[in-house]
Amino acid sequence: MDDKAGMAIALQEAKTSYSEGGIPIGAALFSKEGTLLGRGHNMRVQFGSPIHHGETTALQNSGRLPASAYKGSTMYTTLSPCDMCTGACLLYGIARVVIGENKTFLGGESYLRRRGVEVVVLDDAECRELMERFIQEKPELWNEDIGVTERVYSKEP
Amino acid sequence: MDDKAGMAIALQEAKTSYSEGGIPIGAALFSKEGTLLGRGHNMRVQFGSPIHHGETTALQNSGRLPASAYKGSTMYTTLSPCDMCTGACLLYGIARVVIGENKTFLGGESYLRRRGVEVVVLDDAECRELMERFIQEKPELWNEDIGVTERVYSKEP
Repeated sequence: MDDKAGMAIALQEAKTSYSEGGIPIGAALFSKEGTLLGRGHNMRVQFGSPIHHGETTALQNSGRLPASAYKGSTMYTTLSPCDMCTGACLLYGIARVVIGENKTFLGGESYLRRRGVEVVVLDDAECRELMERFIQEKPELWNEDIGVTERVYSKEP
Repeated sequence: MDDKAGMAIALQEAKTSYSEGGIPIGAALFSKEGTLLGRGHNMRVQFGSPIHHGETTALQNSGRLPASAYKGSTMYTTLSPCDMCTGACLLYGIARVVIGENKTFLGGESYLRRRGVEVVVLDDAECRELMERFIQEKPELWNEDIGVTERVYSKEP
């Protein structure tokens, strides 16, 4: 799977969420062989759910799978994964996490690496600009999604 | 909130899931003031979802909340939290995690402690017996839920 092509699907999901009035973060999970297992976007606004982030929604849309299906898989996500999505990737033994950008929010990248996951940051301008626009437009919604009361966009020590 | 009373609700959820043919893990989230914010159980079988564990379902059932609502809150869970649920508790700044048992599975307890969360293990016989019975009855389902192909019930280094 070409990383740019994988990220293009995640970004498409993020844009869909933005157009729905939601939080513009998208993700796509590909198997080792390059098959799309599932894709999705943050659904906090659309579902009223605090657990449907981009990565977790992509996992849910991948359905029930045996552990072997995640072996060698890659999660593409437009934004650095929060603690919950970091943990979800670890739970299922996802091998690679490819991140669109980590300037507007820095998640569990170092913890993923410590636990043996390959982390790639593409530093994609389109991913970053979409998040910057959203955070400027709806700062309270963004704070709610990452569990903060003020602008502190990383919790990892 | 009395820890035994909180765990009783989580255990009730676990039993409900067992009676539905699901994975018997339950959770309940209480505010600092002792108000029940949400309760739930693992829904892998019932929803066909890999992200609906006990704790995440309790979070979903708590609905959209501002970060302040989680301040000082306690998550009761019948089983030591997996990496995903560990991360979900960290994301929302849950202050305490009270665990029914950690003999059948050991999750992210040490990581929670390192990140400043108070962790209490009750070592509850009823929680343990329910999980032992389930694992004996449906080992493949259990392995699927924790992303393993064999009996290795802790991933934390």
